[in-house]
Amino acid sequence: MSTFNASANGVYLITVTPFKDNGDLDLASTDKMIDFCLESGVTGLTILGIMGEATKLTADESRQYVKQVLARVQGKVPVIVGASAPGFAAMSELTKSVMDMGADGVMVAPPPTVRTDDQISGYFDMVNETLGADVPWVLQDHPVSTTVQMSTGVVLRILKNSPNCVMLKHEDWPGLGKLSAICAAIQKGELKPTSILTGNGGGLFLPEELLRGANGAMTGFAYPEMMVEVCRAHAAGDVERAFDIFDAYLPLAKYEQQAGIGLAVRKHIFAQRGVIASAAIRKPGPKLSALDIADIERLTIRQQKKLSALN
Amino acid sequence: MSTFNASANGVYLITVTPFKDNGDLDLASTDKMIDFCLESGVTGLTILGIMGEATKLTADESRQYVKQVLARVQGKVPVIVGASAPGFAAMSELTKSVMDMGADGVMVAPPPTVRTDDQISGYFDMVNETLGADVPWVLQDHPVSTTVQMSTGVVLRILKNSPNCVMLKHEDWPGLGKLSAICAAIQKGELKPTSILTGNGGGLFLPEELLRGANGAMTGFAYPEMMVEVCRAHAAGDVERAFDIFDAYLPLAKYEQQAGIGLAVRKHIFAQRGVIASAAIRKPGPKLSALDIADIERLTIRQQKKLSALN
Amino acid sequence: MSTFNASANGVYLITVTPFKDNGDLDLASTDKMIDFCLESGVTGLTILGIMGEATKLTADESRQYVKQVLARVQGKVPVIVGASAPGFAAMSELTKSVMDMGADGVMVAPPPTVRTDDQISGYFDMVNETLGADVPWVLQDHPVSTTVQMSTGVVLRILKNSPNCVMLKHEDWPGLGKLSAICAAIQKGELKPTSILTGNGGGLFLPEELLRGANGAMTGFAYPEMMVEVCRAHAAGDVERAFDIFDAYLPLAKYEQQAGIGLAVRKHIFAQRGVIASAAIRKPGPKLSALDIADIERLTIRQQKKLSALN
Amino acid sequence: MSTFNASANGVYLITVTPFKDNGDLDLASTDKMIDFCLESGVTGLTILGIMGEATKLTADESRQYVKQVLARVQGKVPVIVGASAPGFAAMSELTKSVMDMGADGVMVAPPPTVRTDDQISGYFDMVNETLGADVPWVLQDHPVSTTVQMSTGVVLRILKNSPNCVMLKHEDWPGLGKLSAICAAIQKGELKPTSILTGNGGGLFLPEELLRGANGAMTGFAYPEMMVEVCRAHAAGDVERAFDIFDAYLPLAKYEQQAGIGLAVRKHIFAQRGVIASAAIRKPGPKLSALDIADIERLTIRQQKKLSALN
Repeated sequence: MSTFNASANGVYLITVTPFKDNGDLDLASTDKMIDFCLESGVTGLTILGIMGEATKLTADESRQYVKQVLARVQGKVPVIVGASAPGFAAMSELTKSVMDMGADGVMVAPPPTVRTDDQISGYFDMVNETLGADVPWVLQDHPVSTTVQMSTGVVLRILKNSPNCVMLKHEDWPGLGKLSAICAAIQKGELKPTSILTGNGGGLFLPEELLRGANGAMTGFAYPEMMVEVCRAHAAGDVERAFDIFDAYLPLAKYEQQAGIGLAVRKHIFAQRGVIASAAIRKPGPKLSALDIADIERLTIRQQKKLSALN
Repeated sequence: MSTFNASANGVYLITVTPFKDNGDLDLASTDKMIDFCLESGVTGLTILGIMGEATKLTADESRQYVKQVLARVQGKVPVIVGASAPGFAAMSELTKSVMDMGADGVMVAPPPTVRTDDQISGYFDMVNETLGADVPWVLQDHPVSTTVQMSTGVVLRILKNSPNCVMLKHEDWPGLGKLSAICAAIQKGELKPTSILTGNGGGLFLPEELLRGANGAMTGFAYPEMMVEVCRAHAAGDVERAFDIFDAYLPLAKYEQQAGIGLAVRKHIFAQRGVIASAAIRKPGPKLSALDIADIERLTIRQQKKLSALN
Repeated sequence: MSTFNASANGVYLITVTPFKDNGDLDLASTDKMIDFCLESGVTGLTILGIMGEATKLTADESRQYVKQVLARVQGKVPVIVGASAPGFAAMSELTKSVMDMGADGVMVAPPPTVRTDDQISGYFDMVNETLGADVPWVLQDHPVSTTVQMSTGVVLRILKNSPNCVMLKHEDWPGLGKLSAICAAIQKGELKPTSILTGNGGGLFLPEELLRGANGAMTGFAYPEMMVEVCRAHAAGDVERAFDIFDAYLPLAKYEQQAGIGLAVRKHIFAQRGVIASAAIRKPGPKLSALDIADIERLTIRQQKKLSALN
Repeated sequence: MSTFNASANGVYLITVTPFKDNGDLDLASTDKMIDFCLESGVTGLTILGIMGEATKLTADESRQYVKQVLARVQGKVPVIVGASAPGFAAMSELTKSVMDMGADGVMVAPPPTVRTDDQISGYFDMVNETLGADVPWVLQDHPVSTTVQMSTGVVLRILKNSPNCVMLKHEDWPGLGKLSAICAAIQKGELKPTSILTGNGGGLFLPEELLRGANGAMTGFAYPEMMVEVCRAHAAGDVERAFDIFDAYLPLAKYEQQAGIGLAVRKHIFAQRGVIASAAIRKPGPKLSALDIADIERLTIRQQKKLSALN
């Protein structure tokens, strides 16, 4: 059983939130998806992120969903909940609520309003104050969605000032140089041990990132087993195999990373794989066209051939 | 007693949310502030907007605050509640909750993610679906905060497609030309009657906007009586007096419109006028320096002299 | 005769670029405008900025215009040329060209691509390298147009690293606190003497900024004499008179600051005052409507009355 | 010999601009690179785009570079020159200059300031006026760099209003749906024949885009022969082979698409392949680390193995 702390590694999967065709929360599919994730070998779960359609849930539904996930996971892996919020009152309320239910920690990204180094760093001082002494948390560095550019120096500053921040979700772009610099700071003892999981482009740089010193991935993908196997091959010292596995999935992974329709692709494949009952997305959300579905089919067949050739 | 419908006019004041020095919601000051607003002659109130620190309240506090305001207003003027939300579930939840408590309508601005004419217009189709047939609402056009640029054509399209949208809060910048075009469309019968209230720069263009056909203002200012008197003078046909009153307040109004510290200025003056007990702002929020306070003092004394000269 | 160095003060006027009705560069009006500015008492001129429609000139026209201005000014006041450019080759080329013609310095703002403190500061290291040891320059801090947010710390860092940067054009918003902090750093000797001219909202905070320690204004306005007189009254210790003069012009200054049509308002008034022959703006550019012109007329008459009452 | 008109297809390669280690323009490498491109089978060239470091050249250097390219190409394929500019005077000047030298057309993207459908469409009316009746041009739709979101409707409107716009460089993201809609409009005769070349993510969706109806690619990549072969396989009806070739190059193509360091990767590989003498990039620009170079080496070896297995 893995724990959510600074030595966490492997794959923290960012899950989708299953809905029925009529738009209702699908709790049966939630159970099935959790089982699927655990069987895939993920070492953690992150829920209620952007890709979890968090903003499309009512407060009641959020609570219900978190409860369902936690009940099904039964502590087998840590569960992290997205807690970025426009205000600290809501962040505090949500955090207290999910920690009371049994979540292992929360994840926070900076709001688009902070821009300078001091503003960003000052914001996370307030986050620390808000979360308090007992909540371990993940710092999310994702400029593409937040528009906030955190220099390596600022990331280090935040991590130094945040005793309970045990993990960095690194998804700056391009990020390999930044990743190397942060890992070097840890290695040299300039920074406390911190788990570095990467999410760049839905894991599109995973094998390269592991070589730079990342401890694993935190992102979503319709084939979580790919990320698990890449991490395992890397950990076993078989770098070429890590790349071989990765390359087999790359064309579909790339297709799933299309901004705007990525979530629809992921849910479509999950539904096809029987992981969830319906690919329904709540409004506002994209719909796949027949051509999109044909693309996915072609890429899936090609992927299966490559995987067969691999094994 | 004024009603919230397409013939609304005068001043819908955007209120602050009073806190105690210790950061708690200050319900006694809320009552006092409501009384002050009603005595000032406002014809409506808008609560839980950006200037109302809405995002810094917990869900419980929001409900408590709305309840308190509605109880004190006793239906003397309409009360509108800000309902912009990152998702429709939250928008629906909040709207249902405040309408059940007795609010008169809600106000919705587009999210920063919609950019093209079709995306913007499509978004408000979903807003209409979300709010349903029974909730009258205000369309807020405020590019400075939303980054969404709605052309005159798009505003007209949304208003045409939205049977329950009875009011436009116009605060595009520069907006006089757009305002004239929208008012002309109503005059020519190309658009159903719609109340047009303006908020540009905290009312910094109020007398000019009334001349273009606006029906009044929806914004905040530490001296709501200025806006009330400007609207009354304009309605009475005394354009020069409308400008005279306005000009007396302009230097302080301008000072209060500084991005970032405006709310602190407004609460400081409200506290000094005895409208609220404390000027406290919840984090993250600005604090006035001694020099800022000296500026306000000087401008206040000068304002009083000008007002004396006027009457 | 004033010099462009760290002790510069007063009003560096940002000029418009006069065109004929047919769109050609109007050199006769250029001469007239320069004479008008000098008679108004400005202590410097800044040309080829955004409000000078710099990007709408061909390279030849730019050279011709700079030459004409310099020839007419005859060294009576310093002339600064806007040299912000998407690349250093163009910045270097333009700077060399205008300095050879006799300009006194250039002005540089950061490009929108730099975001973190280090990126911003690093950019200006390259600016220093590009401009070389002999070109005095102005640092322009204008987030509204550049989207670059420079903290006080970053501004101080750039000024410390830039031996030839003798002036800061301060137009952050809200900027009074930042202005106070920078002036304090100079006073305490933490920063070399630097001329601080302000441009906020076209000078909309000029009397307040002078009180905070600014040395004058660098901005444009159809009535430069207002800024000159405000600076003089302030320098003479008559703060109330500085505000009195300012307040008389404020309604029109505010009107001229409307984003999008401001330049059209300024050129319209200049044309009416006989400063330039035509109010023509090159495409893409705004046009005033009959209602806009009526607004300006009303505000002008009111302004004249206030000025008469003042003197 | 291919012509630049509405039936253009294949690969219009976006070239880099070669510099010597000392930063000077490298005209010998320019010749070598042109020869390499022509031998690779490209059907057109696009120069002085963002990836061509256009903004880092002086006006003289730009002219010299265009002249050198045109002299070497000798009309074997069309040469398009990037002409996006902050103002129409510069656009007109540059266009006239390069067309006089013998370029086949120019490419124009909208400036970040246009936002609404009408603003975007109106901007291109002025582009048409600026370019005049004799200059064929390419419309570049690249929201990632311009921040301008053009709906399908707006793209069609611009193409309809622009008699000399013969080509669309499609690189919206996600763009497959938009691409299908535009191709359908041409097929149905709702839009005149127009060449649609795609550039998404440096060609990361090329085989999918060809299936949607694109006529080829306009983008840069260190292995232009990949794009040429993919287009040929697709044209020959061998869709699976198009994907096979593509997949072999995808890991390196993905690596080269990293925002910020992509150009450095491309120039590094070009230098290693002997296409240019130096990988030098003018400031401001990224530098590859030893780890980056090791990544490229590994990916290159893996790519060679896959290509061997293919043939």
